[in-house]
Amino acid sequence: MTTDLNRRVREFHEYLDKMQALGRAVGLSHWDQSTGAPKGGVAGRSKFTGILAGMEFSMKISAQMKHFIDELGADRDILDELTRGLLRRCQRDYDAYAGIPPDEYGAFCELTARAEAAWEDAKHRSDYSLFKPFLSDIIAFKKRFVEYRGYDKRPYDALLDEFEPGMTVDQLDLFFGDVKGAVVPLLKRIIEARNKGGVKPVRTDFLSGVPRRRQLAVTRLVCEKLGYDFDRGLIAESEHPFSTSFGRNDCRITTHYLEENWLSSFFSVAHEAGHAIYEQNKRPDIQDTLMDDGVSCAIHESQSRFYENIVCRRREFWDYIYDDMKNALSPRLDGVGADELFAAANIVEPGPIRIEADEVTYPLHVLVRYELEKAVFEEGAGADDLPALWNEKYARYLGVAPKNDAEGILQDVHWSDGSFGYFPSYAVGSAYSAQFLAYMNREFDVGGAVANGGIQRLTGWLREHIHQYGGLRTPDELVRGIAGEGFDSKYYVDYLNGKYYSIYRL
Amino acid sequence: MTTDLNRRVREFHEYLDKMQALGRAVGLSHWDQSTGAPKGGVAGRSKFTGILAGMEFSMKISAQMKHFIDELGADRDILDELTRGLLRRCQRDYDAYAGIPPDEYGAFCELTARAEAAWEDAKHRSDYSLFKPFLSDIIAFKKRFVEYRGYDKRPYDALLDEFEPGMTVDQLDLFFGDVKGAVVPLLKRIIEARNKGGVKPVRTDFLSGVPRRRQLAVTRLVCEKLGYDFDRGLIAESEHPFSTSFGRNDCRITTHYLEENWLSSFFSVAHEAGHAIYEQNKRPDIQDTLMDDGVSCAIHESQSRFYENIVCRRREFWDYIYDDMKNALSPRLDGVGADELFAAANIVEPGPIRIEADEVTYPLHVLVRYELEKAVFEEGAGADDLPALWNEKYARYLGVAPKNDAEGILQDVHWSDGSFGYFPSYAVGSAYSAQFLAYMNREFDVGGAVANGGIQRLTGWLREHIHQYGGLRTPDELVRGIAGEGFDSKYYVDYLNGKYYSIYRL
Repeated sequence: MTTDLNRRVREFHEYLDKMQALGRAVGLSHWDQSTGAPKGGVAGRSKFTGILAGMEFSMKISAQMKHFIDELGADRDILDELTRGLLRRCQRDYDAYAGIPPDEYGAFCELTARAEAAWEDAKHRSDYSLFKPFLSDIIAFKKRFVEYRGYDKRPYDALLDEFEPGMTVDQLDLFFGDVKGAVVPLLKRIIEARNKGGVKPVRTDFLSGVPRRRQLAVTRLVCEKLGYDFDRGLIAESEHPFSTSFGRNDCRITTHYLEENWLSSFFSVAHEAGHAIYEQNKRPDIQDTLMDDGVSCAIHESQSRFYENIVCRRREFWDYIYDDMKNALSPRLDGVGADELFAAANIVEPGPIRIEADEVTYPLHVLVRYELEKAVFEEGAGADDLPALWNEKYARYLGVAPKNDAEGILQDVHWSDGSFGYFPSYAVGSAYSAQFLAYMNREFDVGGAVANGGIQRLTGWLREHIHQYGGLRTPDELVRGIAGEGFDSKYYVDYLNGKYYSIYRL
Repeated sequence: MTTDLNRRVREFHEYLDKMQALGRAVGLSHWDQSTGAPKGGVAGRSKFTGILAGMEFSMKISAQMKHFIDELGADRDILDELTRGLLRRCQRDYDAYAGIPPDEYGAFCELTARAEAAWEDAKHRSDYSLFKPFLSDIIAFKKRFVEYRGYDKRPYDALLDEFEPGMTVDQLDLFFGDVKGAVVPLLKRIIEARNKGGVKPVRTDFLSGVPRRRQLAVTRLVCEKLGYDFDRGLIAESEHPFSTSFGRNDCRITTHYLEENWLSSFFSVAHEAGHAIYEQNKRPDIQDTLMDDGVSCAIHESQSRFYENIVCRRREFWDYIYDDMKNALSPRLDGVGADELFAAANIVEPGPIRIEADEVTYPLHVLVRYELEKAVFEEGAGADDLPALWNEKYARYLGVAPKNDAEGILQDVHWSDGSFGYFPSYAVGSAYSAQFLAYMNREFDVGGAVANGGIQRLTGWLREHIHQYGGLRTPDELVRGIAGEGFDSKYYVDYLNGKYYSIYRL
């Protein structure tokens, strides 16, 4: 590179450092807010966090950013890998947001801040009418944003791209078609088998009555077994479990301890540790840059689901961890075998709540939301129509009816901040995790490795093929880099059928 | 105000909101770092915190800021009280820092970041030579900064003004002269009395062996008794106790629990709660502005010392809290009376460490530092000369000799970030607290109020005269507003003599 190009690259990196510093400040504020900040400070915290987020946003769409993109874009081919990755990310964000008039974006941010509080209140009172006007306005904003942004084929594509670069309605229709075609009948057969009495009842008596203090030790144990690095992370408590990272050297998770069911914190921690292990395993040379981040929501979710389900919900895992668990929970597990723990960890039971769903019913919850979001952005449905659509689809796919708005249409926070297009990544992530498992099994016996305490071998594979790259590649490049093929739902369908036909002897 | 002035005032406030958002982000990052952030993330966190601090600093000395100051300054007399206060604060910062060439300031920040780590390492190894070159460079920077800034009379005045607006060497020479003249002989008499066997030995056996969990309950109890509002604050743990606030609605404190002495966390929490109560009691109409902050370091310290010493180290307090403490620590205090608790809380014992010092010896520790800083900035002493000066003054004023560098010249962190001029506020704060006590006693019987659980009466007085104003007034305006006179050391000298002549029956 020429001296001049070197200088311009350096200026670009310095600009992004500032932008990222603002982003990390916003992230830290959210972390702080969720893990015990004094409730009296909410208003002030929101005000200043909003200001920082606005400053970060302005930098993403500034004239200076446009200048970097144009100028460095012309020299793309001779840039180093990191700068190329940064440039692609900046270009994506610029294209996505620069067309939105700043005043309108500001009004939208203000609306969603109020909408989140309104959603909380509405959920608390289980009254959708309190949230509906906000949702209606948010939809109107997002429809305009979609037009500002533009799209090739379908309006909803523009929303998907924000969370899963390159993902389209056409691809998701195929995917969810396959899922629906396999999972709805699978679920039906499981329920029929159980109703006929062909399935041994599952013991759950040993799940309750474990105090928080002992669950703390169990979640720490799980993290250690999975290879989560506590020097570069920590476990805190929050009302809803989540993970957040400030680069590869600071990847934090939270959980929530329920005295009536220690498996809840067990799996929530395994899930969040999966997100965090992904973050911790990125290449050191992209550390503390914008590439020191996951590549997309679905790939991120594939890692959390991998550790939660593929590892921790498999039979061999419970043999492997059995003695340690027995010690940690002693004498709670006296007379309880590894097979009974495995069974309790894999109960299939359709219910109204997504975050409590098992592996089989989970994608159906996501399917409902996908169809509703498409109805809104492709078929003209409005906030008024959503509850009836919701209930109709839950009845059809899951055979359940929410008792009220709180456990129905109001259960998720995501629409209150306008995150339309985000839900599909939950199901696509699960599907990716099954695809990665299949590839991994071509190279070595995954079950055998887990049984023998070789989880680091699985992590090594994921680090080599996925983790290390952070944001350097697109999701599609990443997946094709492994076995030459793109996202394919067949692995997911095979995985669910294989596992649950065996458990329920269908 | 005219429409045009209104608009300019609004723009000024918006500008300051951004600046403050950056400042709060820096503060939150420090809080996070000190209260358990993963150690692996130190480098990344330092990098991004430094960037945010740099952005905040740039806004303080920008051309835009100069423009606000000039333009609004011309209309100062018709501005509202808040805007006037903000303008004064901004003018102060601008005058203090705008003269420093930005590159030089950047180099200084980089130096102090490395110096703090070097100080930690040097203290750990108890080897001043590892820190000396850094200290030497820091002193050179600060001397240049003093010249850029300018001063009326003495170079050290410029450093003092940064922490205690308006305070001068002339004033401090008088103050420390009075302190030296009173406290050195007082300490001598206490030690003589004890050596002659005229003082009853103080029991301390009940201070050790209280586990962290029970000390948590005790510190919470103290805070509640003092009136600290837990809806707008929290107590966390850190290696060194401190308090920090994000405006009046989020005022946090930390402590450190020592199993061998529960009085340590007791008084550290009382001290930090004093800082926090000051912050919590500011007027709501200055909330989340730059005025939502203490007025100066010494006034802040006067409040922490007031709650720690004037309230919690007084005889009546131990009668008042005795039953609750006995319950909280049961059965540790069986057979221990309120008089024995009071005695244990007021042991006078010269030692080498400032933060472990009692009320009597404390100002002498500060005096040593004041004289050393003056030697550096007024008399040409350098990093080479400091250890000998340190040891000589400790021997003279306190009669003790530090065993090594760690408990001598390296004990405080403050010089590693260049905070010369800060130490005096510790002693001035104690003196202010005695002055406020004297004024308060003119209006009601403070001891009687404490004995009868009326601490809120004391807080009410402090809120009316000090807390409510936040940064709206100068320290001198604030103090003169109470009884028409400025800072006066006589109250402090009388307080120490009165209290300790009585305890030690001199």
